[in-house]
Amino acid sequence: MRLSKLYTKTSKTIIAGEPSKNAQLLIQAGFIHKEMAGVYSFLPLGKKVIDNISQIVRDEMNSIGGQEVQMSIMQSRELWLKTNRWDDKVIDNWFKTKLANGSEVGIGLTHEEPIINALLPFVNSYKDLPVYIYQIQSKFRNELRAKSGLMRGREFIMKDLYSFSMNQKEHQDFYEKVAQSYLRIYSKLGIGDITVRTFADGGYFSKFSDEFQTISDIGEDTIFFDKEKNIAVNKEVYRPEVLQDIGLKEDNLVEKKSVEVGNIFSLGSKYCDSLGLYFLDENGKKQSVIMGCYGIGISRLMGLIAEHFADNKGLVWPSSIAPAKVCIVRIGDEPEVISEAEKIYTKYKNHIDIIYDDRNVRAGEKFADADLLGIPIRLVVSKNTVDKGVVEIKYRTSDKIELIKIDKISELTAR
Amino acid sequence: MRLSKLYTKTSKTIIAGEPSKNAQLLIQAGFIHKEMAGVYSFLPLGKKVIDNISQIVRDEMNSIGGQEVQMSIMQSRELWLKTNRWDDKVIDNWFKTKLANGSEVGIGLTHEEPIINALLPFVNSYKDLPVYIYQIQSKFRNELRAKSGLMRGREFIMKDLYSFSMNQKEHQDFYEKVAQSYLRIYSKLGIGDITVRTFADGGYFSKFSDEFQTISDIGEDTIFFDKEKNIAVNKEVYRPEVLQDIGLKEDNLVEKKSVEVGNIFSLGSKYCDSLGLYFLDENGKKQSVIMGCYGIGISRLMGLIAEHFADNKGLVWPSSIAPAKVCIVRIGDEPEVISEAEKIYTKYKNHIDIIYDDRNVRAGEKFADADLLGIPIRLVVSKNTVDKGVVEIKYRTSDKIELIKIDKISELTAR
Repeated sequence: MRLSKLYTKTSKTIIAGEPSKNAQLLIQAGFIHKEMAGVYSFLPLGKKVIDNISQIVRDEMNSIGGQEVQMSIMQSRELWLKTNRWDDKVIDNWFKTKLANGSEVGIGLTHEEPIINALLPFVNSYKDLPVYIYQIQSKFRNELRAKSGLMRGREFIMKDLYSFSMNQKEHQDFYEKVAQSYLRIYSKLGIGDITVRTFADGGYFSKFSDEFQTISDIGEDTIFFDKEKNIAVNKEVYRPEVLQDIGLKEDNLVEKKSVEVGNIFSLGSKYCDSLGLYFLDENGKKQSVIMGCYGIGISRLMGLIAEHFADNKGLVWPSSIAPAKVCIVRIGDEPEVISEAEKIYTKYKNHIDIIYDDRNVRAGEKFADADLLGIPIRLVVSKNTVDKGVVEIKYRTSDKIELIKIDKISELTAR
Repeated sequence: MRLSKLYTKTSKTIIAGEPSKNAQLLIQAGFIHKEMAGVYSFLPLGKKVIDNISQIVRDEMNSIGGQEVQMSIMQSRELWLKTNRWDDKVIDNWFKTKLANGSEVGIGLTHEEPIINALLPFVNSYKDLPVYIYQIQSKFRNELRAKSGLMRGREFIMKDLYSFSMNQKEHQDFYEKVAQSYLRIYSKLGIGDITVRTFADGGYFSKFSDEFQTISDIGEDTIFFDKEKNIAVNKEVYRPEVLQDIGLKEDNLVEKKSVEVGNIFSLGSKYCDSLGLYFLDENGKKQSVIMGCYGIGISRLMGLIAEHFADNKGLVWPSSIAPAKVCIVRIGDEPEVISEAEKIYTKYKNHIDIIYDDRNVRAGEKFADADLLGIPIRLVVSKNTVDKGVVEIKYRTSDKIELIKIDKISELTAR
């Protein structure tokens, strides 16, 4: 994309009234717009990051047998009454609205109930199980406070996967498969080495659930981390009997700040039972369906990655989710410089996501913007480089400038 | 995709309580699930159709310079007060909800106000214009009646594009460019020959707007169509003085039922002025920005195409948006039949969207499902075809069965 055509612009100043560092930076760089506290719109560069994260997650979900759907955002009151989750005293962050005829409907905050209900026509026998269904979609939670930018939104983008299994064994096998898939996702997103599977409260349904926590000073969660075993315990379940239960020793644990970037839950058969989802086993006997749910906050990941990796020059995106892998910075407007920059852009733009800074602004402004936008590789074309038959490259994470032959550019993005 | 793995199933019967033909059929075929009147979820095959339509629209929007964003669904009351469009007496189909602190917010029904507001930081000078912004997103309208399935939803998926131009000339040029792009979209969707540009009421802002109407007996709109000029007039503006104005003769017009599949509006500068979006011209003088808005109902198109092309055997998808281009139907379970069907599936599945009916059910059921799902090409592998070294192919729109050599399959989808 040509920067001269991109309608958003970077700003030299931080907007007032935004308490969160990730939102400040993303607004300054033109990735998002703040609509109200906890509600942000994704502008072209931000939409690209969201799409890139979503595609990594989608590929993984498909690879473990997930089938993608798009459930409605509007929720039928009747379904949630059946599981006793409609009342604001039970779930305290519902958004609700009313149809023209006066009847109440909910605005989707999670989708267990409608997913189960939509499965009723299709599951009768053990032959119809297991089923794995996921979606990537905007969710809504009426948070009292929303001061963490994209890390805790009132409206946010989430991947939610639901599994339906015949028995505990089948459920546990898939649960573990998702856990491994999540670890692959965090690796692909560039946070694999700082993200750790964490024992957390299991709620109603089981002793523990699993969280995936990214260790970072910007986090609001606290975990106790066993580096050697690469496993952690959430502070909420950090008790001697729990440590004994899961085989961790207090002496090996280090307290860390962290951000929850995924959670997986065993739900047992409670919701399925309440909504009447059963199956007939091989002997024709009616059996309960065992359910699991598996969340990843797509927009939260964007906020976390933005804030965690940022330096004093701006954003620093991992290559896999950056809005562009390469930023071509043209310095000067001599015909041979323009011609060379255009040639490189035209040659690579259909193969690599490239931002081409073809604007007529000062070199210093271009360098500052390439840094603020956080593009992994900066590639400078100037009178000097053209004369030498080279381009100048610099990685966002390094200060080192290298000169490489023009025909070596295609090797760059393989690094 | 293997039909044995797809969790949805077809049904032999039509569900009760669904008045619309398109929703009846799409539910029966397992493409959608009804959540409540006017609210549907998209199951795996339905999600594929939505994605296919969206991608055709997205490619066209990008090709005319549109930049994709994802605006928030939650809407700030303050913005809509500025244009006097918050009051339910002015817009009577708002869904509204409340934040935990009691303040009201809207649930997005259209996005003129937030799009303009989010543009304020980026448009100051004539050098910043024109700007073209679009999104593909769920929208919400509190319809009193919702009996037309996907054709008139309370929650529906829409592409909305907004243009911001320096002057009327620049606006009109782009407006016409969008109109041409829309015609290309309908062609790609397989409804080009029955979709006609139609003069309609311009509302506050101009004499006429343009609608795109698909001529179909299932339609609820009425247009008067000049076949020779390939242009129509909506009944709402069908008056002698209008016909004279636009150069159409009553004698050349035929009355037709139709479905509105797109509309484009000139909005003048009213909304931009109200929200304070201006620009400085070359002389440093403050000027108004001229706005246009351009809608296409993605889920409505799915409903229309489903219902319009359906026959007594079920759905009939145009190849460009079908959930799969080819359905391999394996008849019999002899090892050489299974081996041949698997070979064909494996060879083509990464290049073409294929459904492979590998289920152990009767041939009649497989044929009926291939028809009901509306897959454009049915490809039968049986003992008989394997012995002859051929496969049997049949197009969904024809009764003719042809035998072709196995190595000719790749030519099929080019037709």
